Amino acid sequence: MTIAHSALLTDLYQLTMLQTYHAERMNETAVFELFARRLPPQRGFLLAAGLEQALDYLENLRFTTEERDWLASTGRFSLDFVEALADFRFAGAVHALPEGTVFFANEPILRVTAPLPQAQLVESRLINLLHYQTLIASKAARCVLAASGKLLVDFGLRRAHGGEAGLLAARASYLAGFAGTATVLAGMRFGIPLFGTMAHSLIQAHDREEDAFEHFAAAQPGNVTLLLDTYDTEAATHTLVSLAPRLRERGIAIRGVRIDSGDLAEHARRVRRILDDGGLRQVTILGSGDLDEGRIRELLASGAPFDGFGVGTRLDASTDAPTLDMVYKLQEYAGQPRRKRSEGKATWPGRKQVYRRTAEGTFVGDCLGLEQYSQPSEPLLIPVMEQGRRLQAPEPASAIRERVRAQLAALPTALRASETAPPYPVEVAPELRELTEQLDRKSH
Amino acid sequence: MTIAHSALLTDLYQLTMLQTYHAERMNETAVFELFARRLPPQRGFLLAAGLEQALDYLENLRFTTEERDWLASTGRFSLDFVEALADFRFAGAVHALPEGTVFFANEPILRVTAPLPQAQLVESRLINLLHYQTLIASKAARCVLAASGKLLVDFGLRRAHGGEAGLLAARASYLAGFAGTATVLAGMRFGIPLFGTMAHSLIQAHDREEDAFEHFAAAQPGNVTLLLDTYDTEAATHTLVSLAPRLRERGIAIRGVRIDSGDLAEHARRVRRILDDGGLRQVTILGSGDLDEGRIRELLASGAPFDGFGVGTRLDASTDAPTLDMVYKLQEYAGQPRRKRSEGKATWPGRKQVYRRTAEGTFVGDCLGLEQYSQPSEPLLIPVMEQGRRLQAPEPASAIRERVRAQLAALPTALRASETAPPYPVEVAPELRELTEQLDRKSH
Repeated sequence: MTIAHSALLTDLYQLTMLQTYHAERMNETAVFELFARRLPPQRGFLLAAGLEQALDYLENLRFTTEERDWLASTGRFSLDFVEALADFRFAGAVHALPEGTVFFANEPILRVTAPLPQAQLVESRLINLLHYQTLIASKAARCVLAASGKLLVDFGLRRAHGGEAGLLAARASYLAGFAGTATVLAGMRFGIPLFGTMAHSLIQAHDREEDAFEHFAAAQPGNVTLLLDTYDTEAATHTLVSLAPRLRERGIAIRGVRIDSGDLAEHARRVRRILDDGGLRQVTILGSGDLDEGRIRELLASGAPFDGFGVGTRLDASTDAPTLDMVYKLQEYAGQPRRKRSEGKATWPGRKQVYRRTAEGTFVGDCLGLEQYSQPSEPLLIPVMEQGRRLQAPEPASAIRERVRAQLAALPTALRASETAPPYPVEVAPELRELTEQLDRKSH
Repeated sequence: MTIAHSALLTDLYQLTMLQTYHAERMNETAVFELFARRLPPQRGFLLAAGLEQALDYLENLRFTTEERDWLASTGRFSLDFVEALADFRFAGAVHALPEGTVFFANEPILRVTAPLPQAQLVESRLINLLHYQTLIASKAARCVLAASGKLLVDFGLRRAHGGEAGLLAARASYLAGFAGTATVLAGMRFGIPLFGTMAHSLIQAHDREEDAFEHFAAAQPGNVTLLLDTYDTEAATHTLVSLAPRLRERGIAIRGVRIDSGDLAEHARRVRRILDDGGLRQVTILGSGDLDEGRIRELLASGAPFDGFGVGTRLDASTDAPTLDMVYKLQEYAGQPRRKRSEGKATWPGRKQVYRRTAEGTFVGDCLGLEQYSQPSEPLLIPVMEQGRRLQAPEPASAIRERVRAQLAALPTALRASETAPPYPVEVAPELRELTEQLDRKSH
């Protein structure tokens, strides 16, 4: 397992509902679908991510003895029910969009088909896992589109919402096209390339900035990126230029520099000039400090000579749109389609499929239809789990990254730009509308 | 341990800097302080939280054999350095604001005094832990102030950023005054009271709403809250009224109902009327659905008869201000005060203390001073760890909740309101200004 799961990482009502299903022996097949009800105004598309951790969770789901004892001790549950939890396993089927697939509002990215209690309990954690990685992959994809091929690195662990978020943000942004992350554990657990520079504290701990540069360079000769803005960015660049020959004699080449404050574009231009005049043309410039896709686009449009960017806080917390309206809804039970009709939150019933039409390499429109009415265009949901076991080995990150590249290339041009585009067309199939109306008529 | 820590949950540059310190034998005492550079425009004050998990991390910090082997395998580190990590422990001192203390921009909430490598490595995870819980406790405190004593429950697990965030949001909001959470694992790990209702899926899985109500009530007779808005809120309320006598005969009392969609205030008024007319005056009404402090204030101001609220997404992701500008900066090394002077990110040097003046039970102003110049008013940072061991047992949640109540009561009235208030006065002591100027003069 790559991250720790617990069957109790769920909402209390899942367990009280399970107790009801247990008492009433409601164990027939339920179909739940996970989808975003709408996109945030700042997003023209979303990128599915998190399936790997979701399947890992489903495969390993069980109640430990300690957890069952604790549940019994709360006095909220019958002993009969708690005992039955010892055998609880997820033994259902899952259909999903492959990670890295572009999707839009109301399109299921995951469908669970399982006995009602199994399909119910997993709601909270499935949303939790798929929501966050989708959120971050979608934000990261915007950065990738803005950066036009420049190197992007995730720097966000410290202001991610907890440790798991830091770890999963590294993964989601890497899938979306980032070159790597600064989060060491993500390197170990997920094999993501690691990048790092140095912090201001190392400079401050030395009496002279030059000594700090030299000591740091000597300690990792193969891979040196120096931070310039602790006191005075341009002065530090001159220090570096005068230090470089001495380092070269010791076999140490400076690979890059980082600028983290002030007018980044202006500093980058000055630093580039000082480096070039000092014979350090090969030294790259990395920018950081409250960056996001908008700032990156601005910096590059202004011609600032950056070779890459560290993106932290605004990526890992997706600050301009920190949540998605992602839900997991019952669409069928015991063979009957079901529909929630709450005001503003009604759902499309039945087992659905997303069909995507492509023309000349560009996505031109999707259709949300019923699974049993197949359509000529490409169905996006594929079977990934049966009887609680995966149907495929985990996809390598390289395959998902390749899919993302292809998907972003196939997006309509307007959606690739960061400006608000007209929404991508998603139509609802006539048979799905018909089913919905039938259900509504029946219930009146 | 309450949550899983790993020494590799850090940024790569911490390790490359440690390798530099190792090579240069830079092992003298460093003093780092953790503080918010500024408050988000939507926040008049912050509430310190997360110290318990931060101390837990420091006490248990070590590199496992597997982690060291992996570090060695990356080829980035000398074997000598990796071997030395086997003995790495945090053996420093920590001063901190007790959890639940109100604080403002530039005021340290944690100070680490330790050999440089120890104080350096922990930066990423310390910020990660203290940033998130402080963020959520501060948001939750605003909800508590808005709710004027009504019951508040954390419903946010599913859209929290990962599992750890869900767990820690339950804790932080409980410390801030919430009555409890729906997150079961937070009940088990932290002893937080659990609350739960039912989901729409339970209603949908039944052919008749009345059967769903009856089955659910029968399965947990002591503690029944029914969800009304799956199809038609008022019709469901009538169903409940007609069902109540039959349940009463079976010894089952309905405790509450929940409304989750539509015009909440209007539905609550109608539901209250139907319940009262039906003899169910004791049944409470809980509201939910994209709530935050603003919506709660509005609903209560309109006289909507809610007895409590479930607050989810907007709490656990603090959506209006999803991050704080929280940093951890070197202020002293080897007995010398240190200062970062980066544009817009300069720091106040030296070991600092926060002094707070209170008049007639109200906070009237703080002073950011140097520790060695004591002041007559209350110093807020207290010693909590020495030589890597805690000085006190973990504080019980009840004590922290009591502190929060007292602190919120002592806030200036303008800051307690949700409207933007003039900033709370935090002055900088003359000796601290003097030290800063001295340092700047010395370096020119």
